[in-house]
Amino acid sequence: MLDTPTQAQAPGRPADDRVGIWLVGGRGSIGTTVAVGLHVIANELAAPTGCTTAGDAFVGVPLPRFADLVLGGHDISATPLVRRAGQLADSGMIPPRLVAAAQAGLEQADREIRPGYDPATHEGAQADAVHRLAADITGFRARHGLRTVVVVDVASTEAIPEDRPEFHDPDLLTQVLADPDGVLLPASVITALAAIESGSGYACFTPSAAMTLPSVRALADARGIVFAGQDGKTGETLLRTAIAPMFVARGMHVHSWAGANLLGGGDGATLADPEAVRSKLASKTRGLRSLVGEHVVAPLHIDNVPDLGDIKTAWDHIHAEGFLGSRITMQTIWSAYDSMLAAPLILDLARLLALAERAGVRGVVPELGFFFKDPWGSDVHDFSQQTTELHAWAHATAARVAATTTTSGQSEAFGR
Amino acid sequence: MLDTPTQAQAPGRPADDRVGIWLVGGRGSIGTTVAVGLHVIANELAAPTGCTTAGDAFVGVPLPRFADLVLGGHDISATPLVRRAGQLADSGMIPPRLVAAAQAGLEQADREIRPGYDPATHEGAQADAVHRLAADITGFRARHGLRTVVVVDVASTEAIPEDRPEFHDPDLLTQVLADPDGVLLPASVITALAAIESGSGYACFTPSAAMTLPSVRALADARGIVFAGQDGKTGETLLRTAIAPMFVARGMHVHSWAGANLLGGGDGATLADPEAVRSKLASKTRGLRSLVGEHVVAPLHIDNVPDLGDIKTAWDHIHAEGFLGSRITMQTIWSAYDSMLAAPLILDLARLLALAERAGVRGVVPELGFFFKDPWGSDVHDFSQQTTELHAWAHATAARVAATTTTSGQSEAFGR
Amino acid sequence: MLDTPTQAQAPGRPADDRVGIWLVGGRGSIGTTVAVGLHVIANELAAPTGCTTAGDAFVGVPLPRFADLVLGGHDISATPLVRRAGQLADSGMIPPRLVAAAQAGLEQADREIRPGYDPATHEGAQADAVHRLAADITGFRARHGLRTVVVVDVASTEAIPEDRPEFHDPDLLTQVLADPDGVLLPASVITALAAIESGSGYACFTPSAAMTLPSVRALADARGIVFAGQDGKTGETLLRTAIAPMFVARGMHVHSWAGANLLGGGDGATLADPEAVRSKLASKTRGLRSLVGEHVVAPLHIDNVPDLGDIKTAWDHIHAEGFLGSRITMQTIWSAYDSMLAAPLILDLARLLALAERAGVRGVVPELGFFFKDPWGSDVHDFSQQTTELHAWAHATAARVAATTTTSGQSEAFGR
Amino acid sequence: MLDTPTQAQAPGRPADDRVGIWLVGGRGSIGTTVAVGLHVIANELAAPTGCTTAGDAFVGVPLPRFADLVLGGHDISATPLVRRAGQLADSGMIPPRLVAAAQAGLEQADREIRPGYDPATHEGAQADAVHRLAADITGFRARHGLRTVVVVDVASTEAIPEDRPEFHDPDLLTQVLADPDGVLLPASVITALAAIESGSGYACFTPSAAMTLPSVRALADARGIVFAGQDGKTGETLLRTAIAPMFVARGMHVHSWAGANLLGGGDGATLADPEAVRSKLASKTRGLRSLVGEHVVAPLHIDNVPDLGDIKTAWDHIHAEGFLGSRITMQTIWSAYDSMLAAPLILDLARLLALAERAGVRGVVPELGFFFKDPWGSDVHDFSQQTTELHAWAHATAARVAATTTTSGQSEAFGR
Ligand SMILES: NC(=O)c1ccc[n+]([C@@H]2O[C@H](COP(=O)([O-])OP(=O)(O)OC[C@H]3O[C@@H](n4cnc5c(N)ncnc54)[C@H](O)[C@@H]3O)[C@@H](O)[C@H]2O)c1
Ligand SMILES: NC(=O)c1ccc[n+]([C@@H]2O[C@H](COP(=O)([O-])OP(=O)(O)OC[C@H]3O[C@@H](n4cnc5c(N)ncnc54)[C@H](O)[C@@H]3O)[C@@H](O)[C@H]2O)c1
Ligand SMILES: NC(=O)c1ccc[n+]([C@@H]2O[C@H](COP(=O)([O-])OP(=O)(O)OC[C@H]3O[C@@H](n4cnc5c(N)ncnc54)[C@H](O)[C@@H]3O)[C@@H](O)[C@H]2O)c1
Ligand SMILES: NC(=O)c1ccc[n+]([C@@H]2O[C@H](COP(=O)([O-])OP(=O)(O)OC[C@H]3O[C@@H](n4cnc5c(N)ncnc54)[C@H](O)[C@@H]3O)[C@@H](O)[C@H]2O)c1
Ligand code: NA
Ligand code: NA
Repeated sequence: MLDTPTQAQAPGRPADDRVGIWLVGGRGSIGTTVAVGLHVIANELAAPTGCTTAGDAFVGVPLPRFADLVLGGHDISATPLVRRAGQLADSGMIPPRLVAAAQAGLEQADREIRPGYDPATHEGAQADAVHRLAADITGFRARHGLRTVVVVDVASTEAIPEDRPEFHDPDLLTQVLADPDGVLLPASVITALAAIESGSGYACFTPSAAMTLPSVRALADARGIVFAGQDGKTGETLLRTAIAPMFVARGMHVHSWAGANLLGGGDGATLADPEAVRSKLASKTRGLRSLVGEHVVAPLHIDNVPDLGDIKTAWDHIHAEGFLGSRITMQTIWSAYDSMLAAPLILDLARLLALAERAGVRGVVPELGFFFKDPWGSDVHDFSQQTTELHAWAHATAARVAATTTTSGQSEAFGR
Repeated sequence: MLDTPTQAQAPGRPADDRVGIWLVGGRGSIGTTVAVGLHVIANELAAPTGCTTAGDAFVGVPLPRFADLVLGGHDISATPLVRRAGQLADSGMIPPRLVAAAQAGLEQADREIRPGYDPATHEGAQADAVHRLAADITGFRARHGLRTVVVVDVASTEAIPEDRPEFHDPDLLTQVLADPDGVLLPASVITALAAIESGSGYACFTPSAAMTLPSVRALADARGIVFAGQDGKTGETLLRTAIAPMFVARGMHVHSWAGANLLGGGDGATLADPEAVRSKLASKTRGLRSLVGEHVVAPLHIDNVPDLGDIKTAWDHIHAEGFLGSRITMQTIWSAYDSMLAAPLILDLARLLALAERAGVRGVVPELGFFFKDPWGSDVHDFSQQTTELHAWAHATAARVAATTTTSGQSEAFGR
Repeated sequence: MLDTPTQAQAPGRPADDRVGIWLVGGRGSIGTTVAVGLHVIANELAAPTGCTTAGDAFVGVPLPRFADLVLGGHDISATPLVRRAGQLADSGMIPPRLVAAAQAGLEQADREIRPGYDPATHEGAQADAVHRLAADITGFRARHGLRTVVVVDVASTEAIPEDRPEFHDPDLLTQVLADPDGVLLPASVITALAAIESGSGYACFTPSAAMTLPSVRALADARGIVFAGQDGKTGETLLRTAIAPMFVARGMHVHSWAGANLLGGGDGATLADPEAVRSKLASKTRGLRSLVGEHVVAPLHIDNVPDLGDIKTAWDHIHAEGFLGSRITMQTIWSAYDSMLAAPLILDLARLLALAERAGVRGVVPELGFFFKDPWGSDVHDFSQQTTELHAWAHATAARVAATTTTSGQSEAFGR
Repeated sequence: MLDTPTQAQAPGRPADDRVGIWLVGGRGSIGTTVAVGLHVIANELAAPTGCTTAGDAFVGVPLPRFADLVLGGHDISATPLVRRAGQLADSGMIPPRLVAAAQAGLEQADREIRPGYDPATHEGAQADAVHRLAADITGFRARHGLRTVVVVDVASTEAIPEDRPEFHDPDLLTQVLADPDGVLLPASVITALAAIESGSGYACFTPSAAMTLPSVRALADARGIVFAGQDGKTGETLLRTAIAPMFVARGMHVHSWAGANLLGGGDGATLADPEAVRSKLASKTRGLRSLVGEHVVAPLHIDNVPDLGDIKTAWDHIHAEGFLGSRITMQTIWSAYDSMLAAPLILDLARLLALAERAGVRGVVPELGFFFKDPWGSDVHDFSQQTTELHAWAHATAARVAATTTTSGQSEAFGR
């Protein structure tokens, strides 16, 4: 057991609170890290360091235990998790001894990964794809006797699609889906529709179209699933939303906030595509403008530097004006394995959405904006304010669960 | 007029709400910057950028207007403010055109600076010094028809004194003061006692002994003055208390947080003295430990680099552990004119303590911890939490003022 | 007088060694800085800090004295030097007292600035423009009784032109110049041709086409002028060529070298144009590849951040592989007023080209590659090697001058 | 085989050119890294990246091949190399697969490590210790049939000893050594004396007293051994001596050069001792002063930050004055595994000293200053100049070897 401040013995949970995490892109860098991490944490071979929900602020909140989380997913890659994990160990990202310890868990999770929806090879009506994906999820739920499943989209970032009428009208969308010659929808939309059809919780960790399309969103609301998004806030943007409010609170005027990001790995290669990177860049700057003002000059670059592997390095240069026009400059340099920042948030999102569903919450959960660059249902980007809201929401939701729970056995479940 | 987001026309104030700022160390770098800044802001030649209390969050709070603030002070230096301001302009810190514009204001303020208490040359009972200093302050208040005066200690940082019995017992303290051969008290104590005797508000912007001595504190409480401290939080420590909570909220384990500070100028020279620097270093690390845990390894250096002049540069290196033991490093580089960060806070403190007094607040104001490295009366170091508390306090205090104000003329005073 | 190590009394020079510096773009940021600097250095109000040729390595080399340099130039802007200098003082770049001290010198230089060649308004045969510009230069030389003139191109960076036949064939070039409807040549070519026609020395401080066109180069060689280029090496690239050889000498393998540049000012605005920036980026990366190998991944950005004014900040991130594949990262952050780095090099180039001409040197001077990102006539980018070559060349050229000089009066001229 | 530019097939060498490397401190971090590295390079499982002598500049120089180097040494630690290597793999420093591949080599080298001289437990005359250590070395040479042995001191840094008469007089030194109650000499002196007595080549990689004592140096010269020192130049100091000459060449005036070093690992713990760190700090600053002038303000800190492990991070802040007094700041951040920088230099030193000996060189080799912070026999700190001198020396020495070699078999040996 690592020595971390956030580790604590989880109190008993109801035997029936087993929850599925269905990762779309489950064989990617994040997916693989989640799989290794979940296994070693559930087996108490590692502390849940980096998991927000393992912190003291969540004591008393009846989240599913790590050991009650079950992994499955979709991917269009056939590289087995064990192999991918080995690569990530060789690259220095995951400690080899943890990969070795997680071998059985990886093999088991890998057996639950089904072929994803691949726009490049798809034939026939897209509705069929949605049905197939949804059936994979409901089958998984049944097979493992899960109370609920949370679908998390961690597939490769897509290009921003050109706007189309079916993005705005659910009926048109249904028509396009049914038409074997219908214009292809982005893969992230197919994923979201499968989550809706299967009645799962859903979290969008990518900056892709997904449930941002009004027609898809309408279907989600109609079906009453619980969901949150969008685009995991893990590195540079996390920092920015922690730091920017400081300048504002002190009456300083932020003139410019420039950023340079260097990364390799799978995400680096994807973002080398100028189309794919556009959605990411937009998502990263929005929060900044909302915090320090629209006037801010904020050039931002993401460069694919393959030799850096999975370590992402971000340099930010901030110029603020202070008293009597004086110049204040601040620079930040952030360096971390990107997937190591993302993976614990996937576990957090699954636990929190599972809690929400247990409490009967439906629709978007704005308080989960804490996890996202582009929070759905919320204009709050200030990380500290998001923290306060998340904690309050978790305890309020816990209270709702408690209010609907009467047996003494279940009340024991509270805690971490 | 500069273009800043925080500038707004202040609504009418009662004609009698003129407030004095009495700066101990008034001819220092901060004191001079305050004098230039107050003049040009009061005359609307510059916006109050960098002033917390000029922000949107303070709209509706009946603070004294900048134009209603009057400057005076003590110093042991005889260099006139105009000369000191000229030096700060030559060094690149203050724009020469603002120094030129403030000439009349500087001359006027300089006439209100009286010889300070100088331990090196003092003779006779220390009580006499206290009486003389207090008389300077009450004379200033009377001469300018001020509603109240706020004393702010911005004198050179002192060494931490050896503990002595009179630090703990007000009666012993009174005896030592009366004894012409009494062991010398730190100058900051004499300053605090003069503030108490004159019944002024008081803010301690330095890490010196001042009102941290229980016997001095007891006298302040007995006299019922309003006060706040200690050690202005302007640069590296400000950053740290904005950033550290982010790591905690995300369940990361901060192992080490190393810091290197380079500065020249008057403060650089003072802090080149290893005794003086000790109080500063202690003050800087305390908040960090309280935020991320006592275990943190936090080597910290302050170096006097005369050629850097008044620009302070701070480098911090943070090592945190994330998911599965992964390494996260963050570095920050902060570069700014230290006195330009400090000066607006002096104006803020004077306005807020004047408000507090108007509302009948007595004793320490923990909510002003927002301004300090070592907040008196509070354990809160999280800058965001301090911001929330400050805003709430300001509005609650405004409400107390409103509750005690009945004439229509005075209710107009609300605003900025 | 500033206290710098490089200042020394220049020994006597021949009374007739007055040399002209003709700056194309003379009212720009660099041009204005040269004008202020030359005046205050010539009048011993400032030391020639930042001037390579004022260093100990040049003792004994009979360069023209600063006081013997006379300024003139072309520009398409009508903003007087005094006004431009005032702006640069306001922005914090040039100390106001030096601008004040240089007033007379600025006015005099301004009177010697003639309207430049403006492609946007040009009418008639381009040969006429060349004649007009050349006549301006020869008139300047005659009017001031100058031994020689050195033309330095410091005009705005141009876009890289599409290739055309006349770029390769001097006869075709002559035809195009004579044709009133000829396709417009880049302004830098007109400048170069005017330098050639006037028989002046010539230095290309920009990354523009200029004498890189084979046909222009052929004319320069035919006329026998002395010249050097291209694109002043002042900041990030200077650093790179000083640091890169270290990695090679130690057998480390540089995988990537990423760079981000932030700047405002005139050059920032020009480089905001993606076409103009292309020539600059190419020029910056060439030397790096030549030093560490073609394989290096070297993303590079230049962003226009107007609020930063004339201070340029560059961040570089270097990833090298060391023993047993281990990771070495190095980051550099460089921050300086760009024109303050460039201006002394203009004085150096004028002095060195004037020396070369006196020694009878003709054609390109590869040893002046020390000053350039893209050295003409040389493949050497290693800054240290360039330093060695420059020093050796200066002394060898001095020896050639000495060999052709027999009167005792002239031999006294040696020194700085 | 890794893909590196420096790898090349070594041409044939004389069968008798087997050379011993005797590492004092052989079970330390550097020693262990040398052992792993030598094994995998000799067996062509890794390229000699990071080895200066594997570079193109050394083609044609008849250095011993990596496969002809044999490891032995002294240490006072009993932790076997295999265990230490495992720890360094766990910490992320050495790739686990290389440690596994080197297992046999580590076991073999470990068998050649003898108990070192431990001042804490030593009894009797110190001369006996010298004899014992020297006998270990000569036994090693004989056992393996080595042409020569190079002793390299990589033991823990010592405190600077108080000066004593025997440090200056060889006869007094001999007396003290013979006296069972003689004041203890630093361990590095015992090591140096053993190298002298055994007639080995010697390199001092630490900042310890060693051969800096005139009496020890006199004995070395009398015995005619070949040697070089002192204190490996691997990180921050390497950078400084590559960068500082750039400022000088451009006539800039370096005012200050501040440094902060953070490291954990074995060396971090040693340097946490303020006495031990003094010798290191002195050694680091000397070269800087010699390059940019004695006036430079150069505060420097080394902090032990155990959680950072073997990665050393150094931040440097440089302030230079340029044209017209303008401010230039440069910052460097260097991050690397310190022992990975040091280990290849140990191999280089052994190869080069073995070459020197073959050529009949005796006494100090100033041209090996390239490898050291405090070069013995040389005032040259400019890294580029050192590179030029090293290359020239290597080829001149190769020529001396060639001149004394007449058989065709040996002339084939030239190459890498
Ligand atoms: N810190 C972070 O890592 C972070 C933060 C915010 C957002 N994200 C986003 O998370 C996503 C995943 O990042 P990653 O580093 O794991 O990337 P990755 O490239 O390693 O993995 C993506 C996986 O998605 C799979 N995939 C692609 N298209 C698919 C489809 N149509 N259906 C199913 N699977 C598909 C790929 O085969 C691959 O296995 C990216 O979109 C990234 O932008 C990551
Ligand atoms: N950002 C900041 O600048 C900042 C932040 C926190 C705390 N502080 C503290 O503020 C204080 C002032 O900083 P500064 O930069 O203006 O320093 P400074 O050295 O420029 O000015 C200090 C002034 O105090 C005067 N002084 C010294 N002893 C005195 C005495 N006994 N009575 C009256 N005056 C006396 C000096 O003559 C001088 O004019 C320092 O203690 C510093 O540590 C500054
Ligand atoms: N460190 C440096 O500043 C540096 C380094 C390398 C290269 N350069 C190059 O030096 C050049 C000048 O830089 P700057 O900062 O002074 O730019 P600037 O924009 O301040 O000045 C350029 C001047 O050129 C003038 N100009 C434009 N077109 C002209 C024409 N056809 N004829 C005559 N004048 C013309 C403009 O009116 C302006 O006054 C740029 O090309 C820049 O890329 C600068
Ligand atoms: N980049 C670098 O790593 C670098 C650069 C310059 C100098 N150095 C110096 O190299 C030395 C070794 O560094 P390291 O990181 O390997 O340190 P380390 O602490 O890991 O190893 C030092 C070894 O020396 C052994 N030792 C101590 N006293 C001894 C004695 N009297 N006789 C024999 N062995 C003894 C210790 O047991 C240990 O095994 C240090 O002095 C360090 O300052 C290192
Ligand atoms: Na407190
Ligand atoms: Na030396």
